Amino acid sequence: MTVYLPDGKALEVPEGATALDVAKAVGPGLAKAAVGAIVDGELYDLFKPLPPGARVRILTEKDPEYQTLFRHTLAHVLAQAVKEHFQEKGYDPESVRLGVGPVIEKGFYYDIDAPEPLSDEDLPALEERMRAILQKDLPLRRYVLPREEALARYRGKDPYKTELIQEIPEGEEISFYQQGDEAYGFTDLCRGPHVPSTGRIPPHFKLTHVAGAYWRGDERRPMLQRVYGVAFRTAEELKEYLWQLEEAKRRDHRRIGRELELFLIDPMVGKGLVLWLPKGNVIREELIAFMREEQVKRGYQLVTTPHIGSLELYKTSGHYPYYAESQFPPISFKERGEEEEYLLKPMNCPHHIRIYAHKKRSYRELPLRIAEFGTVYRYEKAGELLGLTRVRGFTQDDAHLFCTPEQVKGEFLGVLDLVLKVFATLGLRDYRARIGVREPGSEKYVGDEAKWALAERQIEEAALEAGLHYTVEAGDAAFYGPKLDFVVKDALGREWQLGTIQVDYNLPERFGLAYVGPDGEEHRPVMIHRAPFGSLERFIGILIEHFAGDFPLWLAPVQVVVIPVSEKQEDYAQEVACKLKEMGLRAEADLRSERMQARIRDAEVQKVPYILVVGEREKAEGTVSVRRRHRGNLGAMPLATFLEKALLEYRERRLESVF
Amino acid sequence: MTVYLPDGKALEVPEGATALDVAKAVGPGLAKAAVGAIVDGELYDLFKPLPPGARVRILTEKDPEYQTLFRHTLAHVLAQAVKEHFQEKGYDPESVRLGVGPVIEKGFYYDIDAPEPLSDEDLPALEERMRAILQKDLPLRRYVLPREEALARYRGKDPYKTELIQEIPEGEEISFYQQGDEAYGFTDLCRGPHVPSTGRIPPHFKLTHVAGAYWRGDERRPMLQRVYGVAFRTAEELKEYLWQLEEAKRRDHRRIGRELELFLIDPMVGKGLVLWLPKGNVIREELIAFMREEQVKRGYQLVTTPHIGSLELYKTSGHYPYYAESQFPPISFKERGEEEEYLLKPMNCPHHIRIYAHKKRSYRELPLRIAEFGTVYRYEKAGELLGLTRVRGFTQDDAHLFCTPEQVKGEFLGVLDLVLKVFATLGLRDYRARIGVREPGSEKYVGDEAKWALAERQIEEAALEAGLHYTVEAGDAAFYGPKLDFVVKDALGREWQLGTIQVDYNLPERFGLAYVGPDGEEHRPVMIHRAPFGSLERFIGILIEHFAGDFPLWLAPVQVVVIPVSEKQEDYAQEVACKLKEMGLRAEADLRSERMQARIRDAEVQKVPYILVVGEREKAEGTVSVRRRHRGNLGAMPLATFLEKALLEYRERRLESVF
Repeated sequence: MTVYLPDGKALEVPEGATALDVAKAVGPGLAKAAVGAIVDGELYDLFKPLPPGARVRILTEKDPEYQTLFRHTLAHVLAQAVKEHFQEKGYDPESVRLGVGPVIEKGFYYDIDAPEPLSDEDLPALEERMRAILQKDLPLRRYVLPREEALARYRGKDPYKTELIQEIPEGEEISFYQQGDEAYGFTDLCRGPHVPSTGRIPPHFKLTHVAGAYWRGDERRPMLQRVYGVAFRTAEELKEYLWQLEEAKRRDHRRIGRELELFLIDPMVGKGLVLWLPKGNVIREELIAFMREEQVKRGYQLVTTPHIGSLELYKTSGHYPYYAESQFPPISFKERGEEEEYLLKPMNCPHHIRIYAHKKRSYRELPLRIAEFGTVYRYEKAGELLGLTRVRGFTQDDAHLFCTPEQVKGEFLGVLDLVLKVFATLGLRDYRARIGVREPGSEKYVGDEAKWALAERQIEEAALEAGLHYTVEAGDAAFYGPKLDFVVKDALGREWQLGTIQVDYNLPERFGLAYVGPDGEEHRPVMIHRAPFGSLERFIGILIEHFAGDFPLWLAPVQVVVIPVSEKQEDYAQEVACKLKEMGLRAEADLRSERMQARIRDAEVQKVPYILVVGEREKAEGTVSVRRRHRGNLGAMPLATFLEKALLEYRERRLESVF
Repeated sequence: MTVYLPDGKALEVPEGATALDVAKAVGPGLAKAAVGAIVDGELYDLFKPLPPGARVRILTEKDPEYQTLFRHTLAHVLAQAVKEHFQEKGYDPESVRLGVGPVIEKGFYYDIDAPEPLSDEDLPALEERMRAILQKDLPLRRYVLPREEALARYRGKDPYKTELIQEIPEGEEISFYQQGDEAYGFTDLCRGPHVPSTGRIPPHFKLTHVAGAYWRGDERRPMLQRVYGVAFRTAEELKEYLWQLEEAKRRDHRRIGRELELFLIDPMVGKGLVLWLPKGNVIREELIAFMREEQVKRGYQLVTTPHIGSLELYKTSGHYPYYAESQFPPISFKERGEEEEYLLKPMNCPHHIRIYAHKKRSYRELPLRIAEFGTVYRYEKAGELLGLTRVRGFTQDDAHLFCTPEQVKGEFLGVLDLVLKVFATLGLRDYRARIGVREPGSEKYVGDEAKWALAERQIEEAALEAGLHYTVEAGDAAFYGPKLDFVVKDALGREWQLGTIQVDYNLPERFGLAYVGPDGEEHRPVMIHRAPFGSLERFIGILIEHFAGDFPLWLAPVQVVVIPVSEKQEDYAQEVACKLKEMGLRAEADLRSERMQARIRDAEVQKVPYILVVGEREKAEGTVSVRRRHRGNLGAMPLATFLEKALLEYRERRLESVF
């Protein structure tokens, strides 16, 4: 049969030839370097027979796909190690039964049903065994069995593999991968692909943790143990990743939220419902004040609307019943014999639309920018809830811009300016934009073709004018309009989607919105949804981790702690704290009878930006000794000097100390 | 039999004697002046036989109870007038059927089922007829009929009176009042009491309006027409009342809210649900900012909590199911096969309690003052909803103070200071306090007797120290604790209950709240509810009417309008508006092509406090010509001077102009 190389060259190979055969035909160097291949766009290993006419590109250890290959083989190596582990404990290796062992982002896992539960303490020993298997450089081979023979191998011994085989469709190959031989090795039902031998796996891996996982994710079926690992090509990548992992733990917003008493999620109130404690509420209010200020500057009009709406409203908008599953069920008066039904609001748009529609609008009023810090409620499964980042109730810094079709670009420019202001103020420096436009030829979009084209052009022009790095993604538009969003990297290098700006041709149509144009005729306005923070809850969760709880002064729940050296300066310390408070700083005097060092340490644990120590000398001279978090001792200065600079740092929402 | 006069003197009178007989026995002057009597604390007329041993105080036209008597008789006079009215139209007077005709505050009404609908246009003619009946000075008399005879009079003719008679319990007298005689007059089934003759009714009355009213308030029964009237002893009182009525119409917050575009209640969103339009939202946010500032000064800690809570939470608090009728029905997941149930929060206390309880508390943390601008939802019947004053969703400036039993006085003093600050800032100068304490001997109260006594003493001490005019009302305490509230008169002289401070021994008990005292033992904290504004919606409704929409500068949605004399000063006008905005004032430049006078008038209709007119001279000199609402032209001044003074007026929340 004929196969084709990347340069288009045809190569004659025997029926059943593999990528290794192709590599050999090209040359012995390539055959030695080869770890796998891309065959007609799909990842192959060196064992699997090629289809006739295939386009084959040989992969070496330099190709990124290499990672997928060795991560997959590592899952098998892990399984072998677990079997050995229990064999050494005196168990029959067959008593270790295996679920699935796939590749995931950065690594792999394997679901295991072992005779004794595994714990994180077992991981170093398992890792040790895995390294030994790598050093033995066991060659892999692939073979195929007829269904009955394959089933016979597991039937009565391993219900999981049996089930997996039964689900392989008729006509599909049932393949196995063996590493080593019958005397020493491991064989697994597997689709592949794998590296040629365990020696081709870089030793830069680590087992990270064990977690429970229901078989097939179904909570009515047995719970297996899932052992997770990460694996990289280089020691540096592994180190970087492990640092990130540690750092992510250190920055975990749930832990910091608890330690700094920022928020509370209380099962008695309800799962996924956030109660903002006083200190967390300071951050929430500061962010709201910041956004309010920036919005008012930009001509937004603020409104407040109820947290429920009649079911009719959401039937008109189409949010009900189309998204009913992600909403709380309606509040029904049926049992009271009344007709009324309400929905806890899943979004603010219908309310804002009714505000737009409450009177006749003229083109002179456009663009009309209606903004609200609106709290919405959406239903997420209990198992999917996570701290502040996945919740059931959240506040959006929401706004809806109503404009003429020609004003789309101006409105995008205005919102981009606002979003970039937010990023800059919070030190989110690494971001890129994505413009989602129609999939050419698709019919799924609502609204006028010409209007879409106009809007898409205006969005791209706005992105260009704003100097953004952006990509245009065909098919990424919603059915109701094109959009622009941002992918932002936090201090940990993790990516977050933020600041979506979404054009909507659907809701103005459904609600029959209109404005009177200069021609005296009624026209349909364009509506733009936008929420730079998105959900305040999620955004604060991201910020807590981004700053690791070390907030800039303007967001710090307590900004200044004044600590008298001894009780002789208590009155002065209180006087200083009072003055700072009067000027609007969040200051406290710590007058507890603890030792001074202990009080300083407590303020540091609470990540307070400024600690002012006052002793006899400061009291006599009207000064304060200033310590800035992460900057150390700044020495003594007149209180007025400190106050002036601290206020500047606060009011200008500086990221860094002004001292 | 013997009866007793107010001075204790016994008087022998025949069985069946009336108050008139007693008056006659005292002297002919009193008999002539008498209009009724107080008999054993109850209001009697001169016709009804006295019980033996009665204590009798004769009433004359000087006594306030006189009003009740003549207002009641006026209802009968109205009924007679309506019958005459239809008789003259050619109807049988019997075809006018009558419901009930009671005395209400300031007047009376009568429910009428007439052969033709009455309208407000008929009222002057009816009034005319009533005055004629007064002038005829028809004497009244009272008589009693046996049940069967009474029923026979109405059966088949008047279903309403028939039903009323049927409901009079066996053994009770069925009395009638007749004015005039068979030839000319009117008789009605009635309990009384009445004045002796229609000539004893002062002519200072007015029929105000006709409204529909279901028979017995039941919407499944026939709709009658209710004719309302007001009546007073003097022409001055009537005039004052009619002025108030006119003024109340002029100040109606629904009308002003519409004209100034403050808020919207949209049936498509839901009845009784307020959407704050941009201009009304300014008032809402200014009030919140004011309260936030005052609360932070007083050591409150602000939190934010969700708008729903699990049903368990409200079962623990006792709010469910005890107050279920005044709540929206629970959000139930039954139809989705889940157990969860939530309630739209009817109050914030349980959420704040869970914040208190989320960690172990020490006496050192007390008093702990947890505040939130919390939006709550309560169900009111559609027919009871009214603008902003009766709604289904409202935001409370809520806080819960957790303290030791000894700290109650200090907390009350703090709250009184805050409430009086609110009253002073808003020009609510006429108020009095009421302290609600236990009803002696009643068993309905929860909590320790000694704690109640301590709290009641502390509340009264606090009221004294705050220099309040107050009354102590026994039996006015809630079952869960004593309270203090205010009755405030607005600019119209109407009274509003505001600023309740309520002690609560119940919720800390139900939630098992505790703090560790200096003794190392756990103690139960006292909880105090307080909300100076109460509901922001209702409060703003009151303020709109109190100010008649003429808000002080700090609350005015638009504070300054800049009007160029001609288009030549447009740039200058915009520059001025920009500077004002930059400094934080809500300023607009009116650059429409309307005539200057028209633009000034528009700003006046919108009740904008400051209008700055700028012509060539102002532009050349950098000045502005200032007009202050209700103060007129203040002349030209440098922009900087205006800005400084206006900012002072704004920032200090002055009630009056500083110019």
